[in-house]
Amino acid sequence: MPEYSFNDLPAHVWPQTATRDDDGVVHIGGVALTELAARYGTPLFVVDEADFRARCRAMAAAFHGAANVHYASKAFLTRTIARWVKEEGLSLDVASGNELAVALRAGFPAARITAHGNNKSTQFLRTCVEEKVGHVVLDNHGELAALADIAAEAGVRQPVMVRVKPGVEAHTNEMIATAHEDQKFGFSLADGAAWNAVTAVVDSPHLELVGLHCHIGSQIFDAGGFNLAAARVLELYGRVHDELDVRLPELDLGGGYGIAYTADQQPLDVEALAREMLEAVREHAEDAGIEAPTVLVEPGRAIVGPSTVTVYTVGFNKTISTSETDTRRYVAVDGGMSDNIRPALYGAQYDARLVNRRAAGKLTATRVVGSHCESGDILISDEDYPDDLTTGDLLAVANTGAYGYAMASNYNLFTRPAVVTVCDGEVTTMLRRETVDDLLSLEDGEF
Amino acid sequence: MPEYSFNDLPAHVWPQTATRDDDGVVHIGGVALTELAARYGTPLFVVDEADFRARCRAMAAAFHGAANVHYASKAFLTRTIARWVKEEGLSLDVASGNELAVALRAGFPAARITAHGNNKSTQFLRTCVEEKVGHVVLDNHGELAALADIAAEAGVRQPVMVRVKPGVEAHTNEMIATAHEDQKFGFSLADGAAWNAVTAVVDSPHLELVGLHCHIGSQIFDAGGFNLAAARVLELYGRVHDELDVRLPELDLGGGYGIAYTADQQPLDVEALAREMLEAVREHAEDAGIEAPTVLVEPGRAIVGPSTVTVYTVGFNKTISTSETDTRRYVAVDGGMSDNIRPALYGAQYDARLVNRRAAGKLTATRVVGSHCESGDILISDEDYPDDLTTGDLLAVANTGAYGYAMASNYNLFTRPAVVTVCDGEVTTMLRRETVDDLLSLEDGEF
Repeated sequence: MPEYSFNDLPAHVWPQTATRDDDGVVHIGGVALTELAARYGTPLFVVDEADFRARCRAMAAAFHGAANVHYASKAFLTRTIARWVKEEGLSLDVASGNELAVALRAGFPAARITAHGNNKSTQFLRTCVEEKVGHVVLDNHGELAALADIAAEAGVRQPVMVRVKPGVEAHTNEMIATAHEDQKFGFSLADGAAWNAVTAVVDSPHLELVGLHCHIGSQIFDAGGFNLAAARVLELYGRVHDELDVRLPELDLGGGYGIAYTADQQPLDVEALAREMLEAVREHAEDAGIEAPTVLVEPGRAIVGPSTVTVYTVGFNKTISTSETDTRRYVAVDGGMSDNIRPALYGAQYDARLVNRRAAGKLTATRVVGSHCESGDILISDEDYPDDLTTGDLLAVANTGAYGYAMASNYNLFTRPAVVTVCDGEVTTMLRRETVDDLLSLEDGEF
Repeated sequence: MPEYSFNDLPAHVWPQTATRDDDGVVHIGGVALTELAARYGTPLFVVDEADFRARCRAMAAAFHGAANVHYASKAFLTRTIARWVKEEGLSLDVASGNELAVALRAGFPAARITAHGNNKSTQFLRTCVEEKVGHVVLDNHGELAALADIAAEAGVRQPVMVRVKPGVEAHTNEMIATAHEDQKFGFSLADGAAWNAVTAVVDSPHLELVGLHCHIGSQIFDAGGFNLAAARVLELYGRVHDELDVRLPELDLGGGYGIAYTADQQPLDVEALAREMLEAVREHAEDAGIEAPTVLVEPGRAIVGPSTVTVYTVGFNKTISTSETDTRRYVAVDGGMSDNIRPALYGAQYDARLVNRRAAGKLTATRVVGSHCESGDILISDEDYPDDLTTGDLLAVANTGAYGYAMASNYNLFTRPAVVTVCDGEVTTMLRRETVDDLLSLEDGEF
């Protein structure tokens, strides 16, 4: 008989402080999830602050300096998150004028901010220059010209990086190496676009080229793709050095560090991966006859993803005949695709556990669905779960910190859940639950 | 040489009042989109009120009475929309407690509301009973028992329908007929679950069974699937009549009426489809030896989808080598997957046109992308567009009224666009543009 593992909280999947007590109740940050559900209602995002900070520190150590690690705001940004990132000494990536605005309003030092985006607005570029943002990553010639004009007007020299397409696409353990990338970001190495952009920046008196940037994918567990990208990009560093006599002090290899969403996935060994990447950069720099640049990285998911769980209340369930002989149990929870679009959008898989008690039921083919009026509203498509999961139970889904709340909608006019942080037995509200009045506050006129 | 049709506004795709004037500017509801963009900024949703109302009327005529047509709130609901639906005499479907709350706050008559959902909360069910909502559509036995208890407590008899799975799945022109449907909604006809639910309702003194409900899919252009579903469901009507001596006066065949998102799609002939469906229901009722029930339908997309366009400002563009010989033009606009997730979520296709002037450029392989920090942020994947589309132009995407704003997010902290309605030269703000302050208003504490 296989071991009954549904009551486990796999350490490589669940937040670092998650424990189950003698009554079967799961605690995070020293706080019982039952207590949080009673106080805040469900669905509820619970963020383990210690987990978030520990991952910041691990990344900082692996990449030889907190400032080399840029937290990617797009995964999830609030002023609290910006403050944590600042306190840990990390740098910050923003990808829109509003992400920049929120970071600045949180008091994040502009010099440690890097601005991304394929279609930055004039206002966004202007704020970058005015606030002296550390790096602007240039994506295209129109933006290059616009930023040069804005910097000239302000009488400054704006530090920039150029985003290049190295022709490497990596996902999980697969890597595709091509010459041409049919996607919107950056300048191609292969067709000369990157070289043209580099020379245009070097020729501009109001832009200062500090390095090149590339990003090869997401959910990567292996250094191979990063190393190949680094090799290709560092060839260009060599050419920039030889032909333009310019030394580029930094190399930004982007994000994409994988996390274990489910128990069968291996956790990423950040330290080993970083060691391999940094060694590869040293070697390829040597091959190119240049001094090795400082390597910058941009983890978002790998920092905030595993810190957070979403707690749901189980509602109705039913058992459905899927053929003459087979059945599937459907368990509905009180959220769904409005608070987590990733299963519907990417086919993402998650790990869910009962958190208000120990389960004892027979493991049964189960689908966990949300409460939206759409058959694709599925959180967990096909897992064996205990058949005693029932109305009123609390089910929590792990690894919802990245692209969960950040991509949340008001579909079916669901109001967005509250987000609370827990640490050493203390609870803090990060974001209060939205209300119908919040939704109606956008309506104009009298009703 | 093929005709240059990019400056056309295909009538079966664009809002009914859309016209292009002599200067090449597109007007909707008698208002220039250039004027709206200047006043409200972009991205901007523009709703053609006359188009919305005309589609309500066409549906009402086709299905022999406005009250038989239930507008599906999930496609898009605000108090303005609820008022229009009310004024046109249609009924209204809601699929959550918050959709119900907004409808009631708009003064929508509860008797004309039908409540849907696979996991209705106790509060939602309680409000349905207290407010005397016209129909509650029962999805599962847990809900059936909960509603019976609530109605008993209130001392009333709540009219209900039972949602059944007829084993028909239809999408566009494809129809799949099966016995077993592996999805979350309703009770299966094939395995006896539907019969058990019907008898449980009939046995309850506090529930009144008025009919059965089924929903077979979305983007349907053909009556075949509806007719097969009706045949299967009406067999059960016959059995209910014969064995329980109960006459069910209504039959709800759900929604799913297709719209033409692109010029090459055929528009749905609502009148012909309705005639065919109603005739099929009459025949199958006769076969079952019962009086034909009144047919109810639930269009959402087919009413609000074509009424609305999203106006974007074109930002940066670039031409990318996709192979040694081919290129693709990338045109970026100032919105993207935050205001329209459907291309990324469903691979949905759309029709986009230049609306501030006539285009004259050479038709070129083009991808229209948004401004989000994600390579999947694509609005139009692969179309031939004029190569003179350039920074500052206004590009509008048609058919964004359904599941556009309704599924919008704040990804990358993009604030949601304004929604304006136009009619006879008048402009009304339906929803104001969100601000960063709106986003921060959910943050708790001092910063």
